[in-house]
Amino acid sequence: MDKQITIVLAPDSFKESMTAKQACEAMERAILKVNPTARCIHVPMADGGEGTTQSLVDATGGTIHSIRVQGPMGKEVEAAYGIMGDSKTAVLEMASASGIGIVPAAERNPMVATTYGTGQLIRAALDHGVEKLLIGIGGSATNDGGAGAFQALGGRLLDAEGKELGPGGGELGRLASIDMSGFDSRIQGVRIEVACDVTNPLCGPEGASRVFGPQKGATPEMISLLDANLQHFADVIKLQLNRDIADTPGAGAAGGLGAGLMVFLNGVLKKGIELVIDYTGLEEKVMQADMVWTGEGSIDFQTQFGKTPLGVAKVAHKHHKPVVAFAGRIGEDIDRLYEQGLDAIFGILPGACSLEEALMQGEKNMERAAENVMRLMMSLQSR
Amino acid sequence: MDKQITIVLAPDSFKESMTAKQACEAMERAILKVNPTARCIHVPMADGGEGTTQSLVDATGGTIHSIRVQGPMGKEVEAAYGIMGDSKTAVLEMASASGIGIVPAAERNPMVATTYGTGQLIRAALDHGVEKLLIGIGGSATNDGGAGAFQALGGRLLDAEGKELGPGGGELGRLASIDMSGFDSRIQGVRIEVACDVTNPLCGPEGASRVFGPQKGATPEMISLLDANLQHFADVIKLQLNRDIADTPGAGAAGGLGAGLMVFLNGVLKKGIELVIDYTGLEEKVMQADMVWTGEGSIDFQTQFGKTPLGVAKVAHKHHKPVVAFAGRIGEDIDRLYEQGLDAIFGILPGACSLEEALMQGEKNMERAAENVMRLMMSLQSR
Repeated sequence: MDKQITIVLAPDSFKESMTAKQACEAMERAILKVNPTARCIHVPMADGGEGTTQSLVDATGGTIHSIRVQGPMGKEVEAAYGIMGDSKTAVLEMASASGIGIVPAAERNPMVATTYGTGQLIRAALDHGVEKLLIGIGGSATNDGGAGAFQALGGRLLDAEGKELGPGGGELGRLASIDMSGFDSRIQGVRIEVACDVTNPLCGPEGASRVFGPQKGATPEMISLLDANLQHFADVIKLQLNRDIADTPGAGAAGGLGAGLMVFLNGVLKKGIELVIDYTGLEEKVMQADMVWTGEGSIDFQTQFGKTPLGVAKVAHKHHKPVVAFAGRIGEDIDRLYEQGLDAIFGILPGACSLEEALMQGEKNMERAAENVMRLMMSLQSR
Repeated sequence: MDKQITIVLAPDSFKESMTAKQACEAMERAILKVNPTARCIHVPMADGGEGTTQSLVDATGGTIHSIRVQGPMGKEVEAAYGIMGDSKTAVLEMASASGIGIVPAAERNPMVATTYGTGQLIRAALDHGVEKLLIGIGGSATNDGGAGAFQALGGRLLDAEGKELGPGGGELGRLASIDMSGFDSRIQGVRIEVACDVTNPLCGPEGASRVFGPQKGATPEMISLLDANLQHFADVIKLQLNRDIADTPGAGAAGGLGAGLMVFLNGVLKKGIELVIDYTGLEEKVMQADMVWTGEGSIDFQTQFGKTPLGVAKVAHKHHKPVVAFAGRIGEDIDRLYEQGLDAIFGILPGACSLEEALMQGEKNMERAAENVMRLMMSLQSR
């Protein structure tokens, strides 16, 4: 190879196997083994879902902070937010504080599940004096329209008798007035962006309760009530705050947290992968590179819908850089991915094995596969 | 890509999954999908072991012929030999007629197991008027020094009373004289090459009986007797035919069939992969190509010891052509393979799965992996 090759390493995490950072490091070890003069630019990626906080912190040399907050069902849980390397940007995932993964299936109940803990996380992030806040909102256990988060930030939701509402979407039907007087004023000075890949409205047949309620443990009766309550919530918001949120795309995300973040925090909803590309400065780094490597635990036809490898591929493609992906599992119908910019996809498994074994050997397998892609590249260029 | 790319496809078979020819075809489908102007030269390979007949027939557009012969334990079996595309060269594997795979474990007995069927296969091949015969001798059930094959070709092995010996290595102790008067005279006009990767002598601690006897069902008592009998066989050969075979490397291959083929058929022992490279004309084809693709079901550190991918890699390396391998399973310690000429090795599995599933999906998996290697190559060359 005549000149030093520069490769951007921009994988997502390999769920249950490697963080995105670990995947970057495995790739780099392989690359340097084959070509010690290569330059690797690590950009651990995410798509706004699980792992986004970790990856953005890793990508920028930031810090993770753990605090105890109120979990979705009331019990305290350990939740985390990140402060990025610039010290001016915070990142958090609602699932860390209010996620369905925290709640055992038998205990799930969207009537009472609250986003209060997410509000506490936001408050803790604001304590760092950040100017920007990225919130990932996938995987919620809640259906409260973000009411809990609003309360945690000092807002009050009162019933007809002026008494504070209890937690959960089941209470919202009794909402009579919204009191923002005690609401955390620091919010005004912070740009809040919300990673959200769904476009569901708050209510109705495509709304939060009907579409996502069942997986959160809602019975048909609950769904009707929750849907009516979110509609009532939207009505009160429109009346008192003059904001019409009910039909806004994404308002129904995360049990209506999308609506709450838009109304109370002036949050702007964007596709998760686009936000991560923006926050990591991926495009600028791609422009400096000869090639881009990405990857994710599983790559299949769904990868085209907002997943990291294709988001990365589009950036690479735009700047005419070859881009290859690595995956622990390659699923069906991946031809669409090539059409959209991904040049090649390599499975990393060395042979037949159980899923457990595959997950356990992730770094070793990544390293081997990456080494061989690098070896192929070197062999093609050196002759 | 500016010019038409030519790729030699030279995989071994993927045992229990694809013949070498099927692997070639899967590779070609993938290559043409990505680059319809590419030219593929199919050279289905083998290493002198199982699949050699099929691959050489496939590589040259020859024909496979099945006949019934006497199996190692006396029962008739269906065995096959191949006539290569030039109609002048035959190829057969002793295991087809006298292999251990034919005999259930409980029935194995090297005292009586005979290579008679292998002799019948040789005779049938000679009926085609060939000038050259390649014999693969791995995987024998026998320990008879090739006595059975000799008998099938018209030779006689007589005891002190002038009576023909019965089948198997247990009889050889009674050998008094060798009668070649009725031996198939066509042998004289045929060049016989034997694919043999072991260098064991006929007798002694490294000999056929002690080293390979146990896996053929020999007890310690049998081993001593079989070893003494082969020594006696060598003594008689030396006395009557003036050929000293006992210490010749490879004489102990296939239960002493190596010795028998050298003595009675003037067979020349060579490494299997070298013979296959020779018979397929691989080197000349590699010289016409831009690149070489190989592969085998399993690739690991043992691949350096006479296996196809490394044999192919050495030819490619000699002519400075990049060479990549594909494998269903990549084992440990493969760094030695890179050092010896293989540029890169790609696993073909798309994800965690059982061995059965991996074997069943071989062609599909090969096609996907090959497609992505081709895609990577195209992306690197087009920018």
